[in-house]
Amino acid sequence: MLTGGDVDVVAGLLTLRERQPLAIFATRAIHDVLDANPIFEVLNREVVAREVLSLGAPVSLGCGLTLELFAVPGKVPLYMEDGSDAPPIVAGETTVGAKIVHGTQALFFIPGCAAITPDLAGRLHHADVVFFDGTLWRDDEMIVAGLGAKTGRRMGHMSMAGQDGAIAAFHDLGVRRKVFIHMNNSNPVLLEDSPERAEAEAAGWEVAEDGMEIVM
Amino acid sequence: MLTGGDVDVVAGLLTLRERQPLAIFATRAIHDVLDANPIFEVLNREVVAREVLSLGAPVSLGCGLTLELFAVPGKVPLYMEDGSDAPPIVAGETTVGAKIVHGTQALFFIPGCAAITPDLAGRLHHADVVFFDGTLWRDDEMIVAGLGAKTGRRMGHMSMAGQDGAIAAFHDLGVRRKVFIHMNNSNPVLLEDSPERAEAEAAGWEVAEDGMEIVM
Repeated sequence: MLTGGDVDVVAGLLTLRERQPLAIFATRAIHDVLDANPIFEVLNREVVAREVLSLGAPVSLGCGLTLELFAVPGKVPLYMEDGSDAPPIVAGETTVGAKIVHGTQALFFIPGCAAITPDLAGRLHHADVVFFDGTLWRDDEMIVAGLGAKTGRRMGHMSMAGQDGAIAAFHDLGVRRKVFIHMNNSNPVLLEDSPERAEAEAAGWEVAEDGMEIVM
Repeated sequence: MLTGGDVDVVAGLLTLRERQPLAIFATRAIHDVLDANPIFEVLNREVVAREVLSLGAPVSLGCGLTLELFAVPGKVPLYMEDGSDAPPIVAGETTVGAKIVHGTQALFFIPGCAAITPDLAGRLHHADVVFFDGTLWRDDEMIVAGLGAKTGRRMGHMSMAGQDGAIAAFHDLGVRRKVFIHMNNSNPVLLEDSPERAEAEAAGWEVAEDGMEIVM
């Protein structure tokens, strides 16, 4: 299940070749990105199904699971930018979140998100688990560290901290488990003894790690 | 320096983003593969030079090093095959070897090769180091192991063993150090205690490993 067309989302497909059967679930716009890059034909279409999902239309995955994709604010993939200074943040088919439901429990997977709109807040209200975009702690973090010229906002990511950050936005949503994913290596929340980690945990957040398992 | 357009050669470029300055040396045909896949635009052309080399035309890399690309027998990348049973083995710009010269010493890097032609044998004669295609031990190895339906030949690789294998072909070439690279995980030469490893070593071959350094 692909939530976007950027390299960090789709490049892993290239390691699933050559004849490993699987199904790729994504919106039409994200499938179009794959279709526009012949290298992904290494995933032989005879054994790898490309399933096109419409936004807001749940599909059954079997085993009692359903998957729904929905738009979140984001930008087009980096390599599809047109060179302008600031590509627009839009909510469409190119950046999506996923809702996976089993019985009465719902899990959300949102690795890239530029803002939490009232619509998105409504979706997440009282969710059981939300995996959420934790790219940066603060918007100018990479600039301050001398790692790059872009803000988080410019990259299509909202930050963790601050009045317009994810921690504040989730404060009243009543989500049972909140887990940050997709951290950039500049994010101090990755350090277990940092004040930022303490602040995130005090607000009820967990920081994902390799091999993490969640049982509810 | 790219020796082909297949996934194992080019996918690593996607981890060198986003603004890391480097130069990509390849033939026109291999650059055409990158150009045909917009995802590689993530390597910003303002900081990543795409240098087109002609076959047989050495270029200076600085530091006294020169690089020359030359054609070796091979096939088009898997994802560019037209679906026919057996794509032709040809010697052209899509599968190449590299010769790197420093002073009087020459190193050859040939990770994919379908056959050693008299022309190629002539090139390699008395070379100091040759890194060579060690994909399979024997041509039907993946079929016998139940791992796939293809022979090595079908994939554009000659095998190590047998009368028409690499070990036999290098027997009289007088290469100072011969190192197998690009081994498939089905190749028993990877096992240090296998008879195949012993046979390769008895013929003067080394099997490459991560972190290997060669000093001459």
